[in-house]
Order: sequence, then C-alpha cells, then structure tokens
Amino acid sequence: MAEYVKVALDAMGGDNAPLETVKGAVEAVNEDKRVKVFLVGKEPLIRNELKKYTYPEEQLEVVHAEQIIEMAEPPVMAIRKKKDSSIVKAMYMVKNGECDAFVSAGSTGAVLVGGQVIVGRLKGVERPPLAPLMPTSNGVSLLIDCGANVDARPSHLVQFAKMGSVYMENVLNIKNPRVGIVNIGAEEEKGNALVKETFPLLKNCPDINFIGSVEARDIPAGTADVIVCEAFVGNVILKMYEGVAGELLKKVKSGLMTNMRSKLGALLIKPALKTTLKSFDTEQYGGAPLLGLKGLVVKTHGSSKAVEVKNSILQCITFKEQNINEKIMEKVASGDSVKQEEKEDII
Amino acid sequence: MAEYVKVALDAMGGDNAPLETVKGAVEAVNEDKRVKVFLVGKEPLIRNELKKYTYPEEQLEVVHAEQIIEMAEPPVMAIRKKKDSSIVKAMYMVKNGECDAFVSAGSTGAVLVGGQVIVGRLKGVERPPLAPLMPTSNGVSLLIDCGANVDARPSHLVQFAKMGSVYMENVLNIKNPRVGIVNIGAEEEKGNALVKETFPLLKNCPDINFIGSVEARDIPAGTADVIVCEAFVGNVILKMYEGVAGELLKKVKSGLMTNMRSKLGALLIKPALKTTLKSFDTEQYGGAPLLGLKGLVVKTHGSSKAVEVKNSILQCITFKEQNINEKIMEKVASGDSVKQEEKEDII
Repeated sequence: MAEYVKVALDAMGGDNAPLETVKGAVEAVNEDKRVKVFLVGKEPLIRNELKKYTYPEEQLEVVHAEQIIEMAEPPVMAIRKKKDSSIVKAMYMVKNGECDAFVSAGSTGAVLVGGQVIVGRLKGVERPPLAPLMPTSNGVSLLIDCGANVDARPSHLVQFAKMGSVYMENVLNIKNPRVGIVNIGAEEEKGNALVKETFPLLKNCPDINFIGSVEARDIPAGTADVIVCEAFVGNVILKMYEGVAGELLKKVKSGLMTNMRSKLGALLIKPALKTTLKSFDTEQYGGAPLLGLKGLVVKTHGSSKAVEVKNSILQCITFKEQNINEKIMEKVASGDSVKQEEKEDII
Repeated sequence: MAEYVKVALDAMGGDNAPLETVKGAVEAVNEDKRVKVFLVGKEPLIRNELKKYTYPEEQLEVVHAEQIIEMAEPPVMAIRKKKDSSIVKAMYMVKNGECDAFVSAGSTGAVLVGGQVIVGRLKGVERPPLAPLMPTSNGVSLLIDCGANVDARPSHLVQFAKMGSVYMENVLNIKNPRVGIVNIGAEEEKGNALVKETFPLLKNCPDINFIGSVEARDIPAGTADVIVCEAFVGNVILKMYEGVAGELLKKVKSGLMTNMRSKLGALLIKPALKTTLKSFDTEQYGGAPLLGLKGLVVKTHGSSKAVEVKNSILQCITFKEQNINEKIMEKVASGDSVKQEEKEDII
C-alpha cells in the first residue's frame, strides 16, 4: 500500500472547534483512503467528539497539545511562547517531516507567522502569499496575495504570479492559466508606483501567461485565473466580495417579504435560487493555501464547518501528489536565473 | 430674484453626449429655478438637441467649443493642447468666476488634471480627492479618495477625512458623520505602513468623528458615513461593488429561468425586486465631486443618462448654497494650526 498523505489538523482552531474540526477530519478519511489526519489539540475533548463516529482507525491519530492560541493574541508572541499549542505543535510536525501539510481554522496571524518561522520558506521564495480561491461566474480564480505580506515589492508580486500559475495549473488543472494584475485602469501606464514597476516585469516573464491589467470590476466575471495584487488590496477584494454579496442577498430576501404576491413568488423561486447561490459559495473549495513554504499550510475561514475542514484536508492530497512545491521551486528559480542574466547584461 | 447657481456642463462628455447631457440639463432647469446651465460644446449639435424640448430660456445658455477631449487621450497633453475643448473651456468659466461649478461625464483623467491645473486647489488643500457616494443597506457612504491621487501620504488622508465630513454634514445632512479608515483588520495595530501612520493622526483629530478601522466587508452595511482610503484601494472598492452586484444579479436572474416553477415565481417577485434594487442604484445620487477645488467639479459616470446628469447639476445647488468650500477651507486650516502647535511643542 502506498504511503499516506499526512495532514496535521489544528483540532482546536476556529469558532466551531473541536466539534466541526473533528467531524471534518472523520469525513475526510471516510471519503479518501490516501490521507491520514493527525488531530492536534486537547486529547480528552477530541476523543469525546471522535466517539460519535465510525472511521478507519489507522487513518486518524490524536496528538495531545495542552495550549490554544486565541484569535486576538498578538501572533508573534503567541508562536514564541505557546510551545505546547495545537498550532505550534502541528507546525513542528510539518517541519520535522512527520506530516506533509497543516490545516487550521485558527488565528490567521499565528498561522502566517508560524508558517514562516516554524515551517520555513522554500529556497528562493521571498514572501509566502496567502492565496484563496474565489468563485466567479465561470469557475474560480486564485487571489494572490490576500493578506500575508503588506507593503510588498515588485519582485514579490512576480513570485506570486509564478506560484499562483503553478497552483492553478496543477491543483485546478487549468492549462496555461491567465495571470492578471489588479489595476485601476486597463492601460499599461495606469496604476500606483508598485503596479507600474511590476507590470513590465510580469510582461517580460517568459513562463507565465500574463494578460495585463485587470480592473476589480471584472474579477467576479472570471477575467483571469490568477489575480495578482499586494496583500492590502487582496484583502479588500476578498472582503468586498463577501460584504456586497451578503448585503445584496439580505436586501433581495427582505424585498421579497414585502407583500403577498412577492412572498408567493419567493416560495416558488427558492430551490432555483439555492442552486444558483451554491456556485458562489466559498465553502466548497476548502481553505486558502499559504504558498512557498516547505510543506503545505492551509488556512480555512474561522467560521469553518466540517465540509470546509474536509475539503481543506482533501486539497492537501492533490498538492502533495502533484509535487507542487518542487514545481514552485523550479519556477521561482527559473525567474532568478533570468534576472541574473539581465543583471550581467547590464554590467 | 436671487442670483442663479451657475453650472458649466460638458455637453460633449460621456458615451451618450450630447443627447443625454442636453436632456439632463433641460430636466434640471425645468425642475429647479435656482440653477442656470451653460451647455459647453459644439453649438450646432447642442441646438439640434435643444429643439426637442421646452424650458425656461433664461436658465440655459449655449457656449460653443470646437474640440472634444476623447476618453483615451493622455489627459495632461489633452488639457494643455485642446484649449477650445468643452472641458477646458468650461473649466476656465469656473476659474474666471463666470460659473460656480462644472459637471462632466467625459474623460476622468482630463477632469482630474483640469481640476487641479485650471480650476486650482483651495488654499491649504494638498490633494483634491474624488469622492463618490456609495449606496449601502441603510443609506449612503462617501468613499474618499476613489481614484484621484495614487500613492497618497498620511497628511492627505487626514484632509480627505475632514473634507468628507464637511460634505456629508452639509450636503447630505448627516450630523456628526462617522469617519472610518479602510483596513485589513479591526485592531489599531493592523494595516500597511500608510494606514498605521494615518490612524493616530485621525484619532487625534479634534474636529472629526473618527470611529477607527473599517473592514471592506462592513462597508456595504453602512458602518461609516465617510470611508477614508487611498485612491487605488478606493477604486478597487467601488469597482468590486459594481462587479459583484452585477455578476450576482445576472446569476440570480439566469437561475430563475431554469424551470417553469421558478419562471412563474420570477414573474411574481419582479416588482418587489425592482424596488429593492433601486436602493442599490448609484444613478440617483448624481456624480462624484472632486473636493478641495476653487469651485465645484463633478465627475459623472461615462455611461451617464439624463437622470444622472440632472442629479449632478442639482447637487451643485446645495454645494454652493451651503458654502461647502468655505467650510472645507476652515476645517483644513484648523488642522494646519493644530499641526503647527504640535511642531512648536516638539521644538
């Protein structure tokens, strides 16, 4: 039998832990024979949840961790001090090679800091970006970076474009993924200093399919497969997505309750509306990978339910089997050699 | 009879000019006796449109301008070279005091450049921001800056907060408007370098009602009245708003057409849905003011119809009658004196 893809799960992370995290882990191992999940956290609580389910026992293991890093804790301090927390302990399992991947619905800050400090960056990667998938009209796009590195430099954005391309090509099976940079106009001369400096670098990048500027307005339509931007802008994009969709649907729903006629209509459209909205639901895609680390780190939403936890775990199988990290290292290194040659040309 | 509020309208600006611009001007003067509109552009074309309507003739005047600045022209060059264009000619009318305000649906770049170069900044204003109103669940918020000044500095953002407060208090009649800064987390220590530096300045600003960080997710719910951000982020917010709402509604509509049951339901909910969506419609608010200039400059959407042109013109009446520019100068100057005192303290 082939070796398992081994995933360390922060069983204590998120608003619904350990109830939904344990449930998600059980669902994952029941669905796929290739994965083994290590539930890291308070053993008595985890065992208590596990009692509810049946599952192949060789695919689930509990690893006790006494501490929990809370959402509001300053992340650098928490990672340094709470050595026996589920996040720190699980991340060391990835660092030491006991696990291939780490999944958490816990503190984003702690996961980002721990990823860099404990798991560590791949050779050649300057900054590991957080890259969630966003549902669009005709599929999904990868938004990279969406909160890991504020005040990024042009060279970071070029690496994001490369890492995002590897991910979309190999994990989502999109051939020659289209890479766009978020800009405030379609023309090349538009933009702030960062975008103006990054644009020609992306244009001259031989191993990505750069399609130029993408205006925020066109993102939901699925104009590009890889949406490159710095973290502050990416965070605003993701949160506007959630905010606008949420408010608009609330408004539509309450509008439908205004009179008898529309109430009856609402009853009739309910099933069709539900199917439609499912395609805009981020849960089905699992969490956001923090790319460019020695091992995979996946951050899922703090409010994750079992289905999101399960999908985040299953995502790790493709990531590992497709050798994404080797491919990222190759691609990032190829850019470096180009840069090197250019430098020599100039000298 | 009191003097008119005089508005120079770029009759040739936008996708639907001069048809919709002239129509909008006629509707404005028919609706309000306090305004006089100067239609600036190709006289024969304008007269041809005017023939269709009846209106109080003393409230409409045609001013011939031979040239048109196209959407794609580099703005600085266009403003410098096309002296006989509708934009340049109309802006000089404001500069020379013949008009109080200028309204255009034409090239945003040309309007921004012309506003600074021809109309000129108010004393004390460092950078004039473009500030559109955004519909929210419980009213409107002012998004400031949304595209005029990329790579802004903290002192600019503080001025945006003050100018936005004056506008919301006096034009939209919101007492003590809540000012928020767009951030990637609710805590004070979050953010990029610009936000971290700006936050304490806003916190210590005595004459605005600063409520702290606002996450993009909470903007559509109407969490703040004045949403302060630098232009790149503002542009992304506005365009995500349009993009997400547009795609989602398209999706909902096509979802409703999937079967007989939902088609019937769709027929029943149509009137209620229409009322709901009207409250999310930006047209009713007219265009976005470019604040901090000697005179008012209003930029409306390139695809504006008559109703948006009309509302942009009528907006100028309140602006003038409430002496917004005097109030802006006072508020900006008050900040300067605080800064001055602080400097002296330090010395």
